[in-house]
Order: sequence, then C-alpha cells, then structure tokens
Amino acid sequence: MAQRPLDVLHNSLESSVLVGLKGGKEYRGTLKGYDVHMNVVLQNADELKDDTAVRRLGVIIIRGDNIVFISP
Amino acid sequence: MAQRPLDVLHNSLESSVLVGLKGGKEYRGTLKGYDVHMNVVLQNADELKDDTAVRRLGVIIIRGDNIVFISP
Amino acid sequence: MAQRPLDVLHNSLESSVLVGLKGGKEYRGTLKGYDVHMNVVLQNADELKDDTAVRRLGVIIIRGDNIVFISP
Amino acid sequence: MAQRPLDVLHNSLESSVLVGLKGGKEYRGTLKGYDVHMNVVLQNADELKDDTAVRRLGVIIIRGDNIVFISP
Amino acid sequence: MAQRPLDVLHNSLESSVLVGLKGGKEYRGTLKGYDVHMNVVLQNADELKDDTAVRRLGVIIIRGDNIVFISP
Amino acid sequence: MAQRPLDVLHNSLESSVLVGLKGGKEYRGTLKGYDVHMNVVLQNADELKDDTAVRRLGVIIIRGDNIVFISP
Amino acid sequence: MAQRPLDVLHNSLESSVLVGLKGGKEYRGTLKGYDVHMNVVLQNADELKDDTAVRRLGVIIIRGDNIVFISP
Repeated sequence: MAQRPLDVLHNSLESSVLVGLKGGKEYRGTLKGYDVHMNVVLQNADELKDDTAVRRLGVIIIRGDNIVFISP
Repeated sequence: MAQRPLDVLHNSLESSVLVGLKGGKEYRGTLKGYDVHMNVVLQNADELKDDTAVRRLGVIIIRGDNIVFISP
Repeated sequence: MAQRPLDVLHNSLESSVLVGLKGGKEYRGTLKGYDVHMNVVLQNADELKDDTAVRRLGVIIIRGDNIVFISP
Repeated sequence: MAQRPLDVLHNSLESSVLVGLKGGKEYRGTLKGYDVHMNVVLQNADELKDDTAVRRLGVIIIRGDNIVFISP
Repeated sequence: MAQRPLDVLHNSLESSVLVGLKGGKEYRGTLKGYDVHMNVVLQNADELKDDTAVRRLGVIIIRGDNIVFISP
Repeated sequence: MAQRPLDVLHNSLESSVLVGLKGGKEYRGTLKGYDVHMNVVLQNADELKDDTAVRRLGVIIIRGDNIVFISP
Repeated sequence: MAQRPLDVLHNSLESSVLVGLKGGKEYRGTLKGYDVHMNVVLQNADELKDDTAVRRLGVIIIRGDNIVFISP
C-alpha cells in the first residue's frame, strides 16, 4: 500500500494543509491532529472561496466525512 | 496523532463553540457535552445566518453526522 | 464528556421537545422514548413550518438519521 | 428509554400506519411486519401525495433508510 | 416482528415484483434472488417511467441501498 | 435466496456488463473482477450517455456505493 | 473474484491514474498509496475540468467515499 493515506497525513502534522469539502468549501490551516476517521484539527484556519480567505476561524475541527481531499 | 479531534473537543467543554452544519446553518453556544460520534450538547444556543442570531434555541443536541466543523 | 447527548435526551423524557430534520421540517411533541440511534418517539406531535403547526400527527416515530437537532 | 421506537412499532402491528419518506412521498397501509433496520411491510398500501392516494401498491416492503417517520 | 421484510421477499421469489429506487426510477421483473442487504436479482427486467417500460434490461442486479420499496 | 446477487456477478466474469451509477452515468465493459462491496473492475470500459459511448476509459475500478445496477 | 479491485489498485502504484469523484471533478496523478477504504494518495496531482488541468495540487489525499471510479 506504499504511502498509506494516514501516514501521509501524519507526516503533514505541523505543516500547512488545504482541505477540500463536499460542496466546494475549502479550508487552509496548520494540521495539528487527526484520527482514523480523517477528522482533522487545523490551527490558524481560514475558510477560502476561490482561493481567497473569506473568514478566519482559528482552531477548527473538521469531520472527516465531509472531506473530499487533503493536500499537504 | 498529536491533538486528536476529540481531545480538542474535550478541552472546549464549558467554552463557546461555533458549529457549522451541512447546508450552511451554524449554531453558537456553550459546549456542555459530546460523545464519540461528535454528537454535541450546546447551551444558550443561537441559530445563526450570516453570523447573525436568527433564533434562540436554549439547550440543543446536534447529531454529529450533520456537523461539518466545530470551532472552539 | 460531561452532559452526554443521550443523557440530555433521557432527562427530556415526558417533556416537550423540538426536533429539526434535514430539509428543514420540524416537529414538536412530548418525548416518550428514544434509542441509541437517536430514533425518537413523540406524542401529540405537530409538524411545523416556520414555527407554525401545519399538521397534527399524534404519535410519531422519527428515525434518528434524519434528525439534525433536538432541543428540549 | 421509556417507549422505545421499536416497541411502539411492534404495538402498531396490524394497525394502519402513515410512513413518511425522504423526498416527501408518504405511504399508508396496515403494518404487517418490520425488522431492526425499520424496514417495514405494509398491506393495502396506498402511495399518497398531499394526503391523497395516487397509487395502490398492495403489499410493499419499504427500506428503513428512506423512512423519515412512522405514525401509528 | 410478524411478516419480516426478508421473509416477504423470500416468498416473492419467482414472482413479478416492482422495485422503486431513489430518484424515482422503477424496475419490474421476476425476482430471482436477493441477499441480506436487499440487493436483488431480477429477470426480464424492464425500466419504467410513469408505469411505461422504457428499456428492457434482461437480468439485472440492483444494489439494495438505492431501493426505496419492493412491491410483490 | 436462490440466485444471490454476488453469484450472478461471479457468473458474469469475463462477460460484457452494463453498470448504472447514481446520477445516471453508465459504463459498459468486460467484468474482470469484483469484491463483496460490489466494487467492480471493468476492461475496455466505455462511459455512456444515452446509450452512446462518450469516452473510452480502458480499465476502470468502480466503487460499489455509486452503483445502482449491474446488468450482465 | 478474479482481478479484485484492490489488487488492480495495487498494481497501479507508481503509475498515472485518473480519479473521478461524485459531482464530476476529476484528478490525475501518480498513485503513491491507498488503503482498504480506497482512500488514495496522488503525487503531481492535477484537478481536471473537461479533461483540462485547472489546478495543480501536488500531493493529495482523496477520501475513498467521494470516489466514483479510478482508471489506471
């Protein structure tokens, strides 16, 4: 299985990640934690619309089942 | 896994949190409890539309599978 | 986990609760029972539209997976 | 848990029930059986639109995961 | 649980059944098999639109999680 | 359960099958493999629109939870 | 089960794959890893619209439950 998805996620801890959700919203922030459901914790999280920050959310827990992709 | 999502939730007990749902509704209130499904209990909960309180709901149980994000 | 969601539900037995569903429908009635899936039983249940009763349903079993929130 | 949802369903066997589905369709018929997933069997089932029978289906098995509510 | 849904399905083997799907499509055919997920196998299956056959599919496996109802 | 769905699938290996997805897309190709989730592998797969091939995809893995029907 | 879906995925490691998502978005990149949920890791991933790259994402983890198909 080579680079397993959760390993890639683990190696992204403390780095900036882009998280794309169903419906098109995206969040960018520093990955502070995750679990096996791919629920993630971001710090200094911005909500993006067309690559532009539209809202600063600070710390945010995103439920995995809304996530389409995570890009480290 | 560093700051696991449920740990972050636990540390937010008795604090004000913003809960974003599928479809765009948001609720703000004091986090009084949660479970492993991320079902949460809020107190003094307001339903928000565009950051404005449109309805006061008091105590509210929100089912986790509708939740997109929780921001402490 | 402080006030667990199912405990809050348990403490609401025999009280009036507001149940919000996906899609926006709401029901108000006396909570007579529930189970771990958050399936609930309401008595003297009214279907609401914009806070107005549009249909009286009497006893009603609501499946948990349609429920967004329950407000005691 | 007082009147558990499945107990209420059990007590409705051989009675007329109204079954509301996601999307708004409703069926009325005599409850002949059910299982733990809330799959139900109705007899003399009518498909309703705005409380009016639009189609007679006779015996019908309805899958639980489409059901929003069951009203005995 | 009286007439359990899967028992009713079992008793419909080799009979003509109407299968209604999410989104409104319906299929009619001879029930040749099923499993516990309510996946079904139909033979001489027609795809219906407003009760009219619009396509002959022959043998067809329908996944249970798309099924709203099965009417023997 | 007579002709179980997975048995019918098994007997269709190396044959041409039509796979209908949620949303209406369809694929036709040679069934090369499957698993218990009804994930399937097609070879020489064409994406169809109104029964016409609109794209040649070669080998394709289709996730079972998108599949509405498989017709051998 | 012949060529099981996960085996086909395994044999595509280090090769370019096309991943189609619910809603129509597609990604092309080098398959670097996967897990049993069909979560995948792509490298040099491009987001495509009508077969044209509209965004370069580099490394990307895609959650399996959004995936419709993977074409090696």
